[in-house]
Amino acid sequence: MSPPTGRGRRPGAPDTRAEVLTAARASFAEKGFRATTIRAVAAAAGVDPALVHHYFGTKDDLFVAALEIPVDPREVLAPVVAAGPDGAGERLLRTFLGVWDDPEIQPGLLAMVRSLVGDDTGGLVRDAFIPVVVGPVLAGLVSDRPEVRIPLVASQVVGLVVARYVIALPPMADMPAEDVVARVGPVLQHYLTGELP
Amino acid sequence: MSPPTGRGRRPGAPDTRAEVLTAARASFAEKGFRATTIRAVAAAAGVDPALVHHYFGTKDDLFVAALEIPVDPREVLAPVVAAGPDGAGERLLRTFLGVWDDPEIQPGLLAMVRSLVGDDTGGLVRDAFIPVVVGPVLAGLVSDRPEVRIPLVASQVVGLVVARYVIALPPMADMPAEDVVARVGPVLQHYLTGELP
Repeated sequence: MSPPTGRGRRPGAPDTRAEVLTAARASFAEKGFRATTIRAVAAAAGVDPALVHHYFGTKDDLFVAALEIPVDPREVLAPVVAAGPDGAGERLLRTFLGVWDDPEIQPGLLAMVRSLVGDDTGGLVRDAFIPVVVGPVLAGLVSDRPEVRIPLVASQVVGLVVARYVIALPPMADMPAEDVVARVGPVLQHYLTGELP
Repeated sequence: MSPPTGRGRRPGAPDTRAEVLTAARASFAEKGFRATTIRAVAAAAGVDPALVHHYFGTKDDLFVAALEIPVDPREVLAPVVAAGPDGAGERLLRTFLGVWDDPEIQPGLLAMVRSLVGDDTGGLVRDAFIPVVVGPVLAGLVSDRPEVRIPLVASQVVGLVVARYVIALPPMADMPAEDVVARVGPVLQHYLTGELP
């Protein structure tokens, strides 16, 4: 799932990498996800498209790298999915909160949320973050109709992010993670595998 | 619930009303809900505090008026609450979507959402909109612990607003209202009256 030449590697030309990422961020923000191409990003950064592939992998991988978050959501979610659908709602939430509640990670995630909605339409959340980054991973958990269930999961998780982290609504902001898991986990489970009209 | 001299009335001095509302909006946005006083709003608008009370009622009412939305959430929610907790999750959602899906009303509501989060901390949602405007009404529906249940309801409803209206995530954006009611209504019911650890 992770890019073959991702974060863990130390490429020889950090400036080139940074220039590609800057060009990629500008293109995703201005043109959106679908209209962004590796070729155009490479041209804007003044490098060969093959180098972009070499550094970052696919366009999906480039998007995740451009988010500049200290975690790859696909890597974080993989073990949740691997453990299967039983109890997945609570596991998913526990993993999610474990990342978001980490004071080292949270500022970067909040910055990501702001940059993702910063294009005023939330287009990158709609066109890339949910369908391209987290959707395909979570599809391994749903009993059927991932195209309906995953957006329902997203609607609750997004609301939780807004309530707990963005606006800090009491008592959501200070609720112990295990209480959130116990209260909201069953809802995610319902959306993932419950009876849904 | 509605202000005694609210929207329905035609006061004799529309300019004064508008000036009070402008002063109120500025104060809520700059100082937040708690630090805003009728007295200070009146002073900023150059009128007597008694006139502000006369035109708008309480500070809560003034806040709702300052939102400049074509509906008072308290009036819209009152019949939902009056019908009691059974099936309230679905009724609440049906009523909510009926207002939000109305093409005459939706732009004003989206503008309200943007203005409420425009202070960058979402402070007015946290300190006024949820606890002062909708919380006390919805408290009539919950079986116990409104201070936990209503923020949980809010977390799902806010996420639904973001998914369906703000970022237009497929298929949430185009899902028939009755499908949303059938799929998300039971979740709201769970948060309102279900077994909650």
